[in-house]
Amino acid sequence: MASSNPSLKPVPPYHRREIRDEILQLKHVIESQQFTVPLLMELFQRSRGMERVVARGGTLEYQNKILASLFYQASTRTRFCFEAAMYRLGGKVLSTEQASIFSSEISGEHLEDSIRILANYADVIVVRHLHAGGAERAADVSAVPIINAGDGDGGQHPTQALLDLYTIYRERPLGGLSVAIIGELDRGRTARSLAYLLAKFERVKIFFVAPPELQMKPDILAYLEEHGVRYELESEIDRVIREVDVVYLTRIRPERVTNERGAKRYAVDSELLRKMKSDALILHPLPRTVELDRTVDDDPRALYFRQAANGLYVRMALLTMLLDKN
Amino acid sequence: MASSNPSLKPVPPYHRREIRDEILQLKHVIESQQFTVPLLMELFQRSRGMERVVARGGTLEYQNKILASLFYQASTRTRFCFEAAMYRLGGKVLSTEQASIFSSEISGEHLEDSIRILANYADVIVVRHLHAGGAERAADVSAVPIINAGDGDGGQHPTQALLDLYTIYRERPLGGLSVAIIGELDRGRTARSLAYLLAKFERVKIFFVAPPELQMKPDILAYLEEHGVRYELESEIDRVIREVDVVYLTRIRPERVTNERGAKRYAVDSELLRKMKSDALILHPLPRTVELDRTVDDDPRALYFRQAANGLYVRMALLTMLLDKN
Amino acid sequence: MASSNPSLKPVPPYHRREIRDEILQLKHVIESQQFTVPLLMELFQRSRGMERVVARGGTLEYQNKILASLFYQASTRTRFCFEAAMYRLGGKVLSTEQASIFSSEISGEHLEDSIRILANYADVIVVRHLHAGGAERAADVSAVPIINAGDGDGGQHPTQALLDLYTIYRERPLGGLSVAIIGELDRGRTARSLAYLLAKFERVKIFFVAPPELQMKPDILAYLEEHGVRYELESEIDRVIREVDVVYLTRIRPERVTNERGAKRYAVDSELLRKMKSDALILHPLPRTVELDRTVDDDPRALYFRQAANGLYVRMALLTMLLDKN
Repeated sequence: MASSNPSLKPVPPYHRREIRDEILQLKHVIESQQFTVPLLMELFQRSRGMERVVARGGTLEYQNKILASLFYQASTRTRFCFEAAMYRLGGKVLSTEQASIFSSEISGEHLEDSIRILANYADVIVVRHLHAGGAERAADVSAVPIINAGDGDGGQHPTQALLDLYTIYRERPLGGLSVAIIGELDRGRTARSLAYLLAKFERVKIFFVAPPELQMKPDILAYLEEHGVRYELESEIDRVIREVDVVYLTRIRPERVTNERGAKRYAVDSELLRKMKSDALILHPLPRTVELDRTVDDDPRALYFRQAANGLYVRMALLTMLLDKN
Repeated sequence: MASSNPSLKPVPPYHRREIRDEILQLKHVIESQQFTVPLLMELFQRSRGMERVVARGGTLEYQNKILASLFYQASTRTRFCFEAAMYRLGGKVLSTEQASIFSSEISGEHLEDSIRILANYADVIVVRHLHAGGAERAADVSAVPIINAGDGDGGQHPTQALLDLYTIYRERPLGGLSVAIIGELDRGRTARSLAYLLAKFERVKIFFVAPPELQMKPDILAYLEEHGVRYELESEIDRVIREVDVVYLTRIRPERVTNERGAKRYAVDSELLRKMKSDALILHPLPRTVELDRTVDDDPRALYFRQAANGLYVRMALLTMLLDKN
Repeated sequence: MASSNPSLKPVPPYHRREIRDEILQLKHVIESQQFTVPLLMELFQRSRGMERVVARGGTLEYQNKILASLFYQASTRTRFCFEAAMYRLGGKVLSTEQASIFSSEISGEHLEDSIRILANYADVIVVRHLHAGGAERAADVSAVPIINAGDGDGGQHPTQALLDLYTIYRERPLGGLSVAIIGELDRGRTARSLAYLLAKFERVKIFFVAPPELQMKPDILAYLEEHGVRYELESEIDRVIREVDVVYLTRIRPERVTNERGAKRYAVDSELLRKMKSDALILHPLPRTVELDRTVDDDPRALYFRQAANGLYVRMALLTMLLDKN
């Protein structure tokens, strides 16, 4: 697999046994930086296999397994994606649409108790929590795998980043990529998770494009510096749009942008399309507000709906990794 | 089948191939008037078959299929009916109880994006939307069948009308029926959908019974005139109750009726029961408020609970029509 | 079975046929006092069998069956437990997270209509209602078994009591037990349901420990007197903690306790642990507030997480009893 991605950072030669050990050590999915390059490649290979599994109607292989969706904040798209992934694998689903309406949970005091109990009922628990660190608290007490499906504005959303990266990987080598990550980056957990993943590949360059007050937080920047990843902070899309291979947009809540042109200044529209590379990739985790014009949808470079479809395959693949322990 | 309903409007002789073509063209279920008489008869024949399938515990035939319930407004009964239908066919279910608590959806701006994404995760999507036209907007962008499970007060609820008509069909020929549709008709999507269906049969006569300010809207009346269907607007139940074959009640919110006797004037109780034909059929889509007295429940003419049971068979049959492409 | 519990109240010798008759008569599960000792022993034997079924990944035996969760009040833990029980038996699940957001149900006027309709879609309905008596109202009109999953503060929660008792039964003989039931007992439906069950066993003694204003209600005390069960009302934990075999804690909302030390006076902490019997059993239905300190979790006498796990087995066993009526 490494051979099919010659641009990967040089990794020590690895064997199936080593990958197997890495998979065995993957108990919970909390942060995207947990994933090594070989593990990512294993995940992506499995994801491609899942495209074929879904095309022939799914499998019954995991029909004894139960996934629980514990969403303290509603997210129909992400929840349905995980649940459909479990169904396509043959499994069952326990589901909360918005667990925080159960008042004794709002305070968050009882997350640990809930997890300890629910681990008796499910084989894997997908948690969306209101606060950064929620998924890790869950993992600390859980007897079954925890998957972080977003934990607060300043947390992570690692499976989103995995499917984002898979979407890019399906189109071109990951080494040497030039990526613009645009939007409300200070609260962008998908942007944060993606930055951690991109840092694992050679010669990547990241442009963080946001109004100065909404720029990427120092913890990520320090991580990139530590890992020798080139990055730039930009406040104007125009200065980077011509040179990047990937335009990764994230939602901007218009009320948070105060300058004269407002959030629209960070939006992609038909004018900006003309300035992009002819083979650029446009990604967005969706939902969108004003930052992604509908006229972009028909452009062949717009990959965000394929990105959503890829979420199914990547999450199926990830579930098999977590559930395949003996 | 047409032979067992001699009172049907004369239809050109049709063959299985033509029905198959009609089924193939049935991509989405948005409005009840989509259904031709032959298609209705095919649906009703399949529904009868489903009564037998359920009696022997269901089938596993559709175990690779996933139904998604996307309800922007909660409706436990309708949602459970669709989901049970899918389960009895062997399939799986993704479910939202009330998707609109997910704030980014409340505005409705992102319905199209949601549908485009969810169509990757499900094989059929049941949508209850807050506004008329919501289901059609969904169908416009969906790669999988959309079923309209109610779209706003002024919209439609076609599967309710299909099961209403099936309930009548199970009791007597549909041609020549005299039907009173009673209640808050200006906002009655079930009444609207049923009127469209009744219009397809010969010699039907419809009495719309409502306070003048809550009467059926002109678009339906124009449709009936165009199709040569006899109808009358009435404000007194008493003037029609003795002659009708079917008493179709719909909910009346008492606060919307201003005259002295109020909503009770449009209610069926033991006194009105005495005036009805001895073989009249009493239907109500439920839930009820004051318009349907509990003393009616034990009357043999009361069919509304059987009507709810029939919903399961009709929706199973409809799902097979939508899912059986290739 | 009776032989393995020599301390049971003497019951007339019974045969499989009699148990079979009792199971046949078990249509709904509304109150814990419905269960005779032989029926409890049958349930507990089945529950032990379910531990083995779950260990090998569940069964597909009930794959034609559908369970509906109708929760008018959210309770993720209880709902997931019932739903996982159904899944481990091979069945399907219809689910409401909080049905009362469906406004026409809030008033509770339509519970009977809802049940009559949903009984067409599911093979068993689990109801959590807001008011005492709700489950019984449901049972009165239901064509399929109703399980009471809690009906108001002054109602019952019989399956919780069944799993509580099973947890004790797995540890020691039920006859001659000395049990402290501690907490906000006036509104404690789990405490109420457990008291009814304990009353069925020989030489049991119950201490109700609560502030006088939150003590157990007279209906339960009258029942115990009628059945010759010894009990005492206490307001100080310290006076009973040294002698009891089982410490059954229930939630105390701090705002309801007015004395100087407040709710903490009814709490178990490391100090109280030192005073307990070395083989005492500590149970709590969870969730907890201040009455159960986290330092207790690691004590070998703390059984409350095992208690939650047992809920799965007991509910699976109960479902088989209700569904096995062909």
